Amino acid sequence: MKRNNVTILGAGLCGSLLSIIFARRGIKVTLLERRPDPRLAGAVGGRSINLVMSSRGIRAVKHAGVFEQIEPLLVAMKGRLIHSLDGDTELQHYGQKDSEVIYSVSRSALNCILIDQADAEPNVTIRFEQEAVSYYPEESTVRMRDHIKACDYDLDATPLIAADGAGSLVRRAYQESDAITASEELLPHSYKELAIPGGSNGAFQLDPGALHIWPRGGFMLIALPNPGGDFTLTLFLASEGETSFAALDEDQKVNDFFNENFADAVPLIDDLIGTWNRNPVGLLGTVRCDHWHDDDKLLLIGDAAHAVVPFHGQGMNLAFEDCVVLDQVLDNPDADWQTVFEVYEKEQLANANAIADMALENYIEMRDTVLSPEYLLRKELSFILERRLPDRLIPRYSMIMFHDEIPYAVAQERGNLQQKILEELTQGIDCIDEIDIEVAVEEVRNRLPPVH
Amino acid sequence: MKRNNVTILGAGLCGSLLSIIFARRGIKVTLLERRPDPRLAGAVGGRSINLVMSSRGIRAVKHAGVFEQIEPLLVAMKGRLIHSLDGDTELQHYGQKDSEVIYSVSRSALNCILIDQADAEPNVTIRFEQEAVSYYPEESTVRMRDHIKACDYDLDATPLIAADGAGSLVRRAYQESDAITASEELLPHSYKELAIPGGSNGAFQLDPGALHIWPRGGFMLIALPNPGGDFTLTLFLASEGETSFAALDEDQKVNDFFNENFADAVPLIDDLIGTWNRNPVGLLGTVRCDHWHDDDKLLLIGDAAHAVVPFHGQGMNLAFEDCVVLDQVLDNPDADWQTVFEVYEKEQLANANAIADMALENYIEMRDTVLSPEYLLRKELSFILERRLPDRLIPRYSMIMFHDEIPYAVAQERGNLQQKILEELTQGIDCIDEIDIEVAVEEVRNRLPPVH
Repeated sequence: MKRNNVTILGAGLCGSLLSIIFARRGIKVTLLERRPDPRLAGAVGGRSINLVMSSRGIRAVKHAGVFEQIEPLLVAMKGRLIHSLDGDTELQHYGQKDSEVIYSVSRSALNCILIDQADAEPNVTIRFEQEAVSYYPEESTVRMRDHIKACDYDLDATPLIAADGAGSLVRRAYQESDAITASEELLPHSYKELAIPGGSNGAFQLDPGALHIWPRGGFMLIALPNPGGDFTLTLFLASEGETSFAALDEDQKVNDFFNENFADAVPLIDDLIGTWNRNPVGLLGTVRCDHWHDDDKLLLIGDAAHAVVPFHGQGMNLAFEDCVVLDQVLDNPDADWQTVFEVYEKEQLANANAIADMALENYIEMRDTVLSPEYLLRKELSFILERRLPDRLIPRYSMIMFHDEIPYAVAQERGNLQQKILEELTQGIDCIDEIDIEVAVEEVRNRLPPVH
Repeated sequence: MKRNNVTILGAGLCGSLLSIIFARRGIKVTLLERRPDPRLAGAVGGRSINLVMSSRGIRAVKHAGVFEQIEPLLVAMKGRLIHSLDGDTELQHYGQKDSEVIYSVSRSALNCILIDQADAEPNVTIRFEQEAVSYYPEESTVRMRDHIKACDYDLDATPLIAADGAGSLVRRAYQESDAITASEELLPHSYKELAIPGGSNGAFQLDPGALHIWPRGGFMLIALPNPGGDFTLTLFLASEGETSFAALDEDQKVNDFFNENFADAVPLIDDLIGTWNRNPVGLLGTVRCDHWHDDDKLLLIGDAAHAVVPFHGQGMNLAFEDCVVLDQVLDNPDADWQTVFEVYEKEQLANANAIADMALENYIEMRDTVLSPEYLLRKELSFILERRLPDRLIPRYSMIMFHDEIPYAVAQERGNLQQKILEELTQGIDCIDEIDIEVAVEEVRNRLPPVH
């Protein structure tokens, strides 16, 4: 089977990890990136500066043999630290084992390491400042613009792996074609990033072992720790309406809004108004496709194939899982590219759709549900049941974040059934002591098959 | 004839001027712009910060009735002030009448005024932060992204006037269609902008009445004056090769290159190395199309239709001329949109191609030919002959810059013949005194018909 060469468009997180994985398989990779080398140019341009890495992402970097290089970047977060309106805080653990933590990681630092590792592979040739200007699906040709040589050239790349992000030029070139059929759905909420600097001597001004949330019903502020002692803050808020980015159109209104809703955070924020006015409002959206490949010519991967909203912290984890799944399909030496793409798409498409849905749902949970007594009661019960039946009831959050062996689609399906069972068991109940745990265990055993 | 409404994509210089012109004709204009309102957001992002305005541009803003608002922005330049390697300077006048000057103007200030004027027209509705994401030629539909409301919507805009710049998304959507057939040709030279700040009390550190050139054969530095006392500097240089942007990859090399080639400018430049490393290298290119319209559905205009390299300072002047020509075609009340677009294209396409060629040629003239004795002799003779036969011999530079009544295509054609005649008349001649002017006048009278 001729699977010797591949062109990957985009040296972001997904494209650079995939290059490493392909290269170690003996496939020669040409990796083309629009921007200058981020290792020279400083911070990578782009949107979110902090990402969540959970078990699927870690499994993928281990699979690629680069975990050792990445580990120093990871800041463990054991749970959500909820900041109430009155300034009280409460830590809600993500899981119930010591290992059940998630990690905050800097997008740009992670990207630089992955590019470094890809660059060190003899099978990988990285070319920076190579911009895809147009894609011609019928000829499977990319019109590339070389910003160093100042010239255009046509690239006849079969197969092309398009890892060119949520706004993928390649995907959009298929807009009137049945081969892909993509939809881009924007959330009516947007985001803006702010910062909490480190204290003196790099001390953290908030607990660095948690993801901080200021849930306020219709909107929320979150903070993720960085290794340097600082935090990245993100405000998620409706784009339009009474309480919205559009309404916060004067410095005084911004100040009032923060003092009213996030009083305990305000003294920690670095130059609130200056940063507010300098930083753009970012859009949030979901990209879905009917197909991710066009014969043996093209495969969309990562955000180009399936951008998701960030509320489950799974965008990168899903993209990294893509790389592992694709590599596993390549284990079959008889499969040509077309077969590889078909089998891969068949395996991963439902998973991407599932996490896209769950990420949208998790926005409601983070900004609102975490405050509800019913939610906390169900969570407490689910932890008890998980200890009793660890192969049957695993909280959905845990399946997604800590159980990379459970596909997202399975987590979604089991999660729906679990939610129904948990709602029934807590119906009309105010306190965990009122529940007969043995009855609950029996109920779960009867209705939920084992995971494996 | 139903010519009541039009949608214009892009509130850059061309789109905003065209909105004013259409509005004053009674046509309702929806003007959509990707970026935030530049009047609020500060400087307009984009490429070149200074532009040249010459008679075609001035005629257009007068035609639109906004010259009075724009006049205060204009800084007159009477000629090229050549800086030799040894630090000597020489002023070469552009024309020979007092009125024959060109103007330096700030792109962002000009854009803000045009948007202001468009905004004041009851017939114009401007909507900012509206980004065209895809264009579907077959349905003549634009997929728009509203960055304020955070939603996508489909715009069924007939006719759509695409003034969305050199990288036009609409034009590129036609990449496999015969209706447009576009080419983008990059120059193997690129540019980088630097700055000379004003002296104390806003004093100019160079003569503000000229366009400064440091012509060095294969490359050049130029400086354009700003009203605030500062200058915008631009280095034009090969992208790759021995002397190139690619070769200037260390601070010391940049310093050495400037000290060697532009010693008199170096002490005036603000933070040479910092600015060098901060500012991107910009590409230069020419966009040409076989057609600019698709039935009555679409018209490309300005850079979207015909980007030209900046060496004749005619990109904006051509785009503004487009608006005037289009408006003149609209004088025919019986013409529907399709006819208007056809007649307009027929009139202006050859002119755009002509100035695209001449702009490329002028790079050689600016960086090299201006130093040659033969060039200076021909220039001297052409000025003498113009005084004698002002309706027959007008230097090509003057036809382009000062004679907006002469179409670019005519200027090119007459320019070629003139060049031939001037070369013949100066063949083997070292000094103007050796030429029999009466013979030369007779020769011109015999071979060049009157302009009008």
